[in-house]
Amino acid sequence: MRPTATPLQRINVEGGDVLHVLKSQDRTFRGFAEAYFSLIRKDFIEPWRRHHHATLNLVVPSRAVRFVATIRGDAFEETIFSSQNNFARLTIPPGPWLAFQGLQKEESIILNISDRIHQGNEIDHCGLNKFNYEW
Amino acid sequence: MRPTATPLQRINVEGGDVLHVLKSQDRTFRGFAEAYFSLIRKDFIEPWRRHHHATLNLVVPSRAVRFVATIRGDAFEETIFSSQNNFARLTIPPGPWLAFQGLQKEESIILNISDRIHQGNEIDHCGLNKFNYEW
Repeated sequence: MRPTATPLQRINVEGGDVLHVLKSQDRTFRGFAEAYFSLIRKDFIEPWRRHHHATLNLVVPSRAVRFVATIRGDAFEETIFSSQNNFARLTIPPGPWLAFQGLQKEESIILNISDRIHQGNEIDHCGLNKFNYEW
Repeated sequence: MRPTATPLQRINVEGGDVLHVLKSQDRTFRGFAEAYFSLIRKDFIEPWRRHHHATLNLVVPSRAVRFVATIRGDAFEETIFSSQNNFARLTIPPGPWLAFQGLQKEESIILNISDRIHQGNEIDHCGLNKFNYEW
């Protein structure tokens, strides 16, 4: 499987919008084990990691984040998600390498809803120079 | 049951912190049906509503929100949650009335993880003047 982007509804409501994230009947839902936020400062690049078992559902409710995932050999898939211009859910199945970068001032926010509790022993990590990607 | 606040870990990480939200083994977890964000502008008060069936798990990853819930008759429970000073999960079981107010500049963000898909017919609404609460 490869990474999938699913556009999400942003509903205009007096006092502040409602932003859809994930429903249990959605096609990319694999079960709920854990939800957590990762903050990422402008220009910082969180280096490559891949999950052996967990499926990640990633949403950016504030500011913007560039996600880059490996697909088939040396190819990359890059998408910029933001709450304003491209509000969507990025589903990362087990297998691809993923890295991401904060794009806007101060800190962007990423919500991850995963079907596995975060466990270091199912995650591989490596440095940014492992792949020849131009950030 | 009454509303419960559960303090959450904020883990210092290079490039941007990790903020815990909810795990399937947590005591307040009742099942996953839907996750969504509600934004709320500074000073706006989202009026009273109560759920007949859904349990809400509410977390504020950006800025600050004042939540007020009814407990037993005419009593209120007020708590201010923020990602910086009081990072916690507010669990609202079916029954209490809940209203909330944005407290900081621009828009605060609330994540709700609920054990029911959002459905208007299990929610009662009423205006701010229904309860004698001084905002």
